[in-house]
Amino acid sequence: MKKIHLLLLMFFISTVLFAQEKINVVVIGAHPDDCDIDAGGTAIEFARAGHNVLFVSLTNGDAGHFSKGGGALAKIRRAEAQEAGKRFGVKYIVLDNHDGELMPTLDVRLNVIRLIRQWNADVVIGPRPNDYHPDHRNTATLIQDAAYMVIVPNIAPDTPPLKKNPVFLYTEDNFQKPYPFQPDIVVDITDAFDQKIYSMAAHESQFFEWLPWTSGKLDEVPKTEKERLKWLANWRKPRINDKERQALVKWYGEDRGNQIKYAEAFEICEYGSQPTDDEIRKLFPMLKK
Amino acid sequence: MKKIHLLLLMFFISTVLFAQEKINVVVIGAHPDDCDIDAGGTAIEFARAGHNVLFVSLTNGDAGHFSKGGGALAKIRRAEAQEAGKRFGVKYIVLDNHDGELMPTLDVRLNVIRLIRQWNADVVIGPRPNDYHPDHRNTATLIQDAAYMVIVPNIAPDTPPLKKNPVFLYTEDNFQKPYPFQPDIVVDITDAFDQKIYSMAAHESQFFEWLPWTSGKLDEVPKTEKERLKWLANWRKPRINDKERQALVKWYGEDRGNQIKYAEAFEICEYGSQPTDDEIRKLFPMLKK
Amino acid sequence: MKKIHLLLLMFFISTVLFAQEKINVVVIGAHPDDCDIDAGGTAIEFARAGHNVLFVSLTNGDAGHFSKGGGALAKIRRAEAQEAGKRFGVKYIVLDNHDGELMPTLDVRLNVIRLIRQWNADVVIGPRPNDYHPDHRNTATLIQDAAYMVIVPNIAPDTPPLKKNPVFLYTEDNFQKPYPFQPDIVVDITDAFDQKIYSMAAHESQFFEWLPWTSGKLDEVPKTEKERLKWLANWRKPRINDKERQALVKWYGEDRGNQIKYAEAFEICEYGSQPTDDEIRKLFPMLKK
Amino acid sequence: MKKIHLLLLMFFISTVLFAQEKINVVVIGAHPDDCDIDAGGTAIEFARAGHNVLFVSLTNGDAGHFSKGGGALAKIRRAEAQEAGKRFGVKYIVLDNHDGELMPTLDVRLNVIRLIRQWNADVVIGPRPNDYHPDHRNTATLIQDAAYMVIVPNIAPDTPPLKKNPVFLYTEDNFQKPYPFQPDIVVDITDAFDQKIYSMAAHESQFFEWLPWTSGKLDEVPKTEKERLKWLANWRKPRINDKERQALVKWYGEDRGNQIKYAEAFEICEYGSQPTDDEIRKLFPMLKK
Amino acid sequence: MKKIHLLLLMFFISTVLFAQEKINVVVIGAHPDDCDIDAGGTAIEFARAGHNVLFVSLTNGDAGHFSKGGGALAKIRRAEAQEAGKRFGVKYIVLDNHDGELMPTLDVRLNVIRLIRQWNADVVIGPRPNDYHPDHRNTATLIQDAAYMVIVPNIAPDTPPLKKNPVFLYTEDNFQKPYPFQPDIVVDITDAFDQKIYSMAAHESQFFEWLPWTSGKLDEVPKTEKERLKWLANWRKPRINDKERQALVKWYGEDRGNQIKYAEAFEICEYGSQPTDDEIRKLFPMLKK
Amino acid sequence: MKKIHLLLLMFFISTVLFAQEKINVVVIGAHPDDCDIDAGGTAIEFARAGHNVLFVSLTNGDAGHFSKGGGALAKIRRAEAQEAGKRFGVKYIVLDNHDGELMPTLDVRLNVIRLIRQWNADVVIGPRPNDYHPDHRNTATLIQDAAYMVIVPNIAPDTPPLKKNPVFLYTEDNFQKPYPFQPDIVVDITDAFDQKIYSMAAHESQFFEWLPWTSGKLDEVPKTEKERLKWLANWRKPRINDKERQALVKWYGEDRGNQIKYAEAFEICEYGSQPTDDEIRKLFPMLKK
Repeated sequence: MKKIHLLLLMFFISTVLFAQEKINVVVIGAHPDDCDIDAGGTAIEFARAGHNVLFVSLTNGDAGHFSKGGGALAKIRRAEAQEAGKRFGVKYIVLDNHDGELMPTLDVRLNVIRLIRQWNADVVIGPRPNDYHPDHRNTATLIQDAAYMVIVPNIAPDTPPLKKNPVFLYTEDNFQKPYPFQPDIVVDITDAFDQKIYSMAAHESQFFEWLPWTSGKLDEVPKTEKERLKWLANWRKPRINDKERQALVKWYGEDRGNQIKYAEAFEICEYGSQPTDDEIRKLFPMLKK
Repeated sequence: MKKIHLLLLMFFISTVLFAQEKINVVVIGAHPDDCDIDAGGTAIEFARAGHNVLFVSLTNGDAGHFSKGGGALAKIRRAEAQEAGKRFGVKYIVLDNHDGELMPTLDVRLNVIRLIRQWNADVVIGPRPNDYHPDHRNTATLIQDAAYMVIVPNIAPDTPPLKKNPVFLYTEDNFQKPYPFQPDIVVDITDAFDQKIYSMAAHESQFFEWLPWTSGKLDEVPKTEKERLKWLANWRKPRINDKERQALVKWYGEDRGNQIKYAEAFEICEYGSQPTDDEIRKLFPMLKK
Repeated sequence: MKKIHLLLLMFFISTVLFAQEKINVVVIGAHPDDCDIDAGGTAIEFARAGHNVLFVSLTNGDAGHFSKGGGALAKIRRAEAQEAGKRFGVKYIVLDNHDGELMPTLDVRLNVIRLIRQWNADVVIGPRPNDYHPDHRNTATLIQDAAYMVIVPNIAPDTPPLKKNPVFLYTEDNFQKPYPFQPDIVVDITDAFDQKIYSMAAHESQFFEWLPWTSGKLDEVPKTEKERLKWLANWRKPRINDKERQALVKWYGEDRGNQIKYAEAFEICEYGSQPTDDEIRKLFPMLKK
Repeated sequence: MKKIHLLLLMFFISTVLFAQEKINVVVIGAHPDDCDIDAGGTAIEFARAGHNVLFVSLTNGDAGHFSKGGGALAKIRRAEAQEAGKRFGVKYIVLDNHDGELMPTLDVRLNVIRLIRQWNADVVIGPRPNDYHPDHRNTATLIQDAAYMVIVPNIAPDTPPLKKNPVFLYTEDNFQKPYPFQPDIVVDITDAFDQKIYSMAAHESQFFEWLPWTSGKLDEVPKTEKERLKWLANWRKPRINDKERQALVKWYGEDRGNQIKYAEAFEICEYGSQPTDDEIRKLFPMLKK
Repeated sequence: MKKIHLLLLMFFISTVLFAQEKINVVVIGAHPDDCDIDAGGTAIEFARAGHNVLFVSLTNGDAGHFSKGGGALAKIRRAEAQEAGKRFGVKYIVLDNHDGELMPTLDVRLNVIRLIRQWNADVVIGPRPNDYHPDHRNTATLIQDAAYMVIVPNIAPDTPPLKKNPVFLYTEDNFQKPYPFQPDIVVDITDAFDQKIYSMAAHESQFFEWLPWTSGKLDEVPKTEKERLKWLANWRKPRINDKERQALVKWYGEDRGNQIKYAEAFEICEYGSQPTDDEIRKLFPMLKK
Repeated sequence: MKKIHLLLLMFFISTVLFAQEKINVVVIGAHPDDCDIDAGGTAIEFARAGHNVLFVSLTNGDAGHFSKGGGALAKIRRAEAQEAGKRFGVKYIVLDNHDGELMPTLDVRLNVIRLIRQWNADVVIGPRPNDYHPDHRNTATLIQDAAYMVIVPNIAPDTPPLKKNPVFLYTEDNFQKPYPFQPDIVVDITDAFDQKIYSMAAHESQFFEWLPWTSGKLDEVPKTEKERLKWLANWRKPRINDKERQALVKWYGEDRGNQIKYAEAFEICEYGSQPTDDEIRKLFPMLKK
């Protein structure tokens, strides 16, 4: 059961882990690898500082492959996610919904609400509702639909509500309509980049099989792990655009802000708590001038 | 049955009520209190001038409370809505859908269509599809999905279609994405404000229990009715921003427009009839220079 | 709105109509004409004695025809049902669900519950869950699913619950599996037969168009009303089998029981109240030795 | 598209194939192999006599395996069904619904209706609604729900209705509740048995992988094709019980009836046309004394 | 999360608890109190002998009350179930589905499958699909739909499948159609009866509020705990009919079988494993001559 | 069956038709006439140059009429679409979903995916998700949800995936929110205009009955075909706005661009392939300076 290990963890070490200075972050993606791509570096920064990060994949990834599928593929994807979680230093939960068939139902929404509550989330991170993949768009809708409802006690009454609506953040995308992504918070992940790539690489069936296949470069995938990491790093290194550079300067100061090599950007969703800059600095302690 | 009293009303006095000069307004919200907050003052203005206003809550409010719930709460909410309707001078209907679980289904859409038709609506008012509460967003979708379909006779064939697509209006919110609220029509509710607060106060379990609880100020709620009204008025008094002031001047003239203290603003939805300024003045006779 | 006229009726004359000796009967069918065929004679007997009978069609009959369909057909069917109701002396409600597409959803179930409660039913009559038409089977399921729930106040909390679970009865059919129909109650409709046929004949698009078409005898349908009634009577006269004759003797005594020409039979559903013979005689006062 | 080859077939040779003496049979199962097991021998008898048999699997078989799954498995299953169809001499269609998740929805029901109509079916064969696998039970419900509706022109109006409700038959099972299978028609398949086994063997992933795995005898499966056929024949040879023997004597006469080695039995479903014995002999010309 | 404590338990002591002689039993009901009524005594017998019993309520009981409801009631019901579980010596899980609205969806079915697998069930016990309450009937359908599927690895691939289909049993009811309950296994609960009543009494809102209310005897409910237990015992003591007495003699021998005062009866469902008498004695070690 | 003729076509002449220079275009609308209005001229241009155009109506048009409806109307609409297809020189498929009730379900999405794949589409054209009719908005959602998924082999595994995500285009509308239509590609249809009107006129029940009725000009509709075409041309001639004129100049050069009388405009959807200008010229060979 996906929620088990998480709960075990919570049971034993909640008094330790969720002590007052700890920040609890939930990253939600559609597929086992989406959280990694969109917020993996930031997750590493949180984890290194002792905060608690949960990755959730709303589908079990049982469709995205050219030669495997179904429950058989779901088991591979789940194992890869467990390994990735270890490398990132986060807890990784894979829900058992069909890949490519995620719909914004009340059932899935309630499970998202439960997970956010159980992690006692301060920050929830996920995609914007505009993206190329319907599962991504529906993931965004499901997260939006969980915002605010996480504090309503009669909704999912089996799980105690949060005291406060978390800050909800969107991860970066390149879509311009109906409006372009706005990098409100940008995190320096330069130091975390190698670990991010190494952690992502745990999703072998994604990064070395399925995604190269869809890009027509399956035959380019190197054979050795070392070369694979290099190849993946090259393929997946994020570029920093002007607005993001500006934000980096805002959050890290002129000097560091201009030198940062790799970053992950986030937009504040209007349906969660609206943090001030000071509150952002508390929630994202790595933002330091 | 929610549609009963409305129908009774229609049956007996339709020839009287729906005479040619009467304007028929339907305000639709997600919860018993949403119509009140968003368009209560305007409804009072319409009602005072002898027009016909219907408030509809698409859910029965059976979840939004910290210690009550279910059918037991729904009965309280329904009774509060009846009392609020009396105070506003409007008909108040509460549909029996679960609070916090409203989905944009065909069934609910068809009921929205029926209600708009039965009221012979000239104007339909409801939230924009971007808002912090999923029930609000789904309410907006349901209203949009009823627009135009109200004139198609084969849809909900048990209820005769309207001759003309009504004007559909959005109520004000502060959300900026994907685009900010545009105050096309702004109504002076200064004279109606006290009655609006008094009418809203009928929703005791909302304004003096649940909403203060979610804002962490349950202990601030006064005990006496008089103090409660004052407290509610202070909490819920609308602020007029620049764009709204501009619109007030447009509709009420320079003098009055600049002195108006309280107002409610509406944006014209693109899916209903698109009224000219003259038509707006006919539909909103209170807009007078 | 389908529930309107019913409610109007209830509002004005409930004190009169629902006085202590009146029995309230709800007959539920899938299509506009099913109640008529299955319990029309019994309804006439109830109505003649001043009791209150409601016929409900769960679908609007918008599919069962060879050349008409949709909302256009639904309007014809509704008008025919109104006329039939007048002839039977009962109230006839037609719900607006698609014919041939009735599913046992929670939404329809809740509407069935509301109607049974509003009529303050002592007896509810409908088909068995085995029958040749999927709409009939789903009607049976919906009625079964309303039994008992009609007394639970938190279910459909907008409509006050019944104080007591009504007696639920199945109408006769010829299906043998999983077990044959058991005629617990059999009502002499000999005197009501002509009126039953005349009332059924109001469903012109059913008895003189669609049903003859499906039986390949559209060209046999007579032209004049008088001949049509005779033809319909001949086609639709019920036959009395041995078990039914036995029951007639039980309820009406040896003499009358053996002479009865036309009858309608009912089986007691195990999910409603289980009446004793004495209670049955009170609920069916026409059963007299 | 699953309905394509069937249609091609119909287009070119319908005048030939569907000439007056041809009988059109549709066998419907839940999984690619169910039709084969339940009615494969009878299908061979029909096909040998030049009649038209269609096998339909309502799911794509994408779950029933211990190491494969999803679309990848569905493709294997579809190919195996094509091969089986060739061996049986029937057309084999595999619908693309998830295995293990078949629900009796309106969508699937309408597709069943369309297929029965397109094949101009005289006989429709499928499981009873009681069986150990939920997909089987739901298949039975879907077939029952298609009966009669196949003649209603406004249902699935894109496909012309049948002129007459076909005979619907249940295939044999051993379940006793709510009532045991009743062998109304029993077909001698002794001569067809070897071909039936050979045809079934085309479903390699079923009969030599999945089904042995669930029975704990995966290691018993022989390696060579010849041995596999023998092993499968031994495993899957039907036994004739007393009621079936009686029916065989009725249909085939005392002599042959008592000597028949292998048979397939069918029960007449009450929701289709109710054939007389003479009509049964016309629909099943292989029943000869 | 409902599955948490169960899992914790499993994690730590599975090696101990699920040692070879332990029998794992899952009892599934619709509401928090159904398992107790139907199999509480048998559960006590299993628990006393060191076996593992899980009670599951598929709904959260948020409707069945005359003055409370929703999440507020669900929390009371959950707490009562926890207390009842302690008294019975079983694990008690309450799923978070709405009471009175349980539908046999794929989602709930999959959760039932997961729970049966996690408990590594040898025996699964639940209601028959005919019963007065729609939630009970749908519970039965959901359990039937889980049978066999619990061994299919690609269904709910996040939870490892069982090696063997458990024995599925129906609990006793009085419904005669389509066929009466058949007491295949009858367990002597005379010694467990007092503990059963005491354990049931933990559901205060059920046995001392809601159920007396529906029976019109709310004012009969005693005030003191001692009297309440006596009153409940008197109300809820099971009667032993002839067929059950026969079965008791079969399982316990002539002497004891005839003296047993209280018993619980079970019918073997045809969709699970079909145990021999010897296997039944192994699964129900309390059956001893 | 709607997919039949298409498939027949594909089977016989795919080697010819889909030769390397042919461009395959799928236009998808909600109702039988939407494709015609939005992209009919462009379709004619493609067809004249020997390319392959498929029109798909996601609903069967069984509601949009004042006096007809249901399956009876659907048959008329289907026949009109066939005739329109002939006049346009395109294949016209009408899916059998209810008009006015189209929902963005997984089932419809998968059928859209299958059709796009079967046509081996290079370009897919449909409405934007903002429009006055809910069926139009849901059509847009369904097309967006098909983008990318058309290349995933495990989704709709019965239909081989495309090798490449097509270019997805939106057709023109006048809605301004959340952002106005952007004419990325504008096609000169001046030469095709008469044929477009003639082809559209095949939808008699739309352009000469239903749409005039909704506009209150049913009595203006001329009687003779010649006058009807003129009347329709006048009613439906597209106007070219400034942004579109600019685009025409870009694609056709200053001279021709400024003289073009009638045009159809398209916006590139961000979820399909993002073509360069060169690629656009290859996909739209009629764009020539």
